[in-house]
Amino acid sequence: MHELFRKKRLEIIVEGALVETVLGMLDREGATGYTISSASAGRGDAGRWQRDDITPALGRATILVVAKEDVARRLAEAVYDLLADHAAMILLSDVEVFRDADY
Amino acid sequence: MHELFRKKRLEIIVEGALVETVLGMLDREGATGYTISSASAGRGDAGRWQRDDITPALGRATILVVAKEDVARRLAEAVYDLLADHAAMILLSDVEVFRDADY
Amino acid sequence: MHELFRKKRLEIIVEGALVETVLGMLDREGATGYTISSASAGRGDAGRWQRDDITPALGRATILVVAKEDVARRLAEAVYDLLADHAAMILLSDVEVFRDADY
Repeated sequence: MHELFRKKRLEIIVEGALVETVLGMLDREGATGYTISSASAGRGDAGRWQRDDITPALGRATILVVAKEDVARRLAEAVYDLLADHAAMILLSDVEVFRDADY
Repeated sequence: MHELFRKKRLEIIVEGALVETVLGMLDREGATGYTISSASAGRGDAGRWQRDDITPALGRATILVVAKEDVARRLAEAVYDLLADHAAMILLSDVEVFRDADY
Repeated sequence: MHELFRKKRLEIIVEGALVETVLGMLDREGATGYTISSASAGRGDAGRWQRDDITPALGRATILVVAKEDVARRLAEAVYDLLADHAAMILLSDVEVFRDADY
């Protein structure tokens, strides 16, 4: 059995137009990797929205980062300050991985 | 450092044809927001399925809600009763967020 | 109130070309079901990548399995050994479900 290591999963759900801005911030703050998925529809404070192939920037994306707790917490703070005035969800949760050095 | 608050992540993975029914239930039960993502393929009790652009209702979607524990639990119960006879996955897990009042 | 049962969520994020290989392994190891979602872009050790409709095998997918802890752990080990030389993320986390017997 390989050993498992506790890390943090940071998920940032944000409108498509802001994805590059968030990724730039993650890069500057030292994130070693991320995975982006598209959300297709949703509802929040600003009402209901639906992804649209003509204007994908109006859709939402989920940016996933797995990192050590202190790094994930720092990234989350930086993204929170960056997105203060925008509709975004920033979620932190526990996760276990095999390769300690990869995160 | 901003304070983090413990909430529950509720994920409902359900066939596309039932998404609107579940969203109506979430609205009636007081969910303040949700995010929907499409799943592209899977396998369950009913065998293997694959998303199909001609008949998207046959695909599956993941509906994500983040809420206070008691609200998330109530929403989960309501969806469970609603989907009793359908293939669906209802998952509850822990998550932390910055904005207590938003959830 | 229905009872909730603790299970493990296993997520495998892997390049599209390896999805069938991973699913074959999950089948042989006794996974009862899975859900696959496409990731649209990301960055890791091998640099930045973007999903491309011409060559979807170059994109990434997330394979989600929810199972009892011992099964999820065994599946994770098997996938880890299978994907040793490939860029992949294998994530284990806690989740609660209603139907004990389904997982």
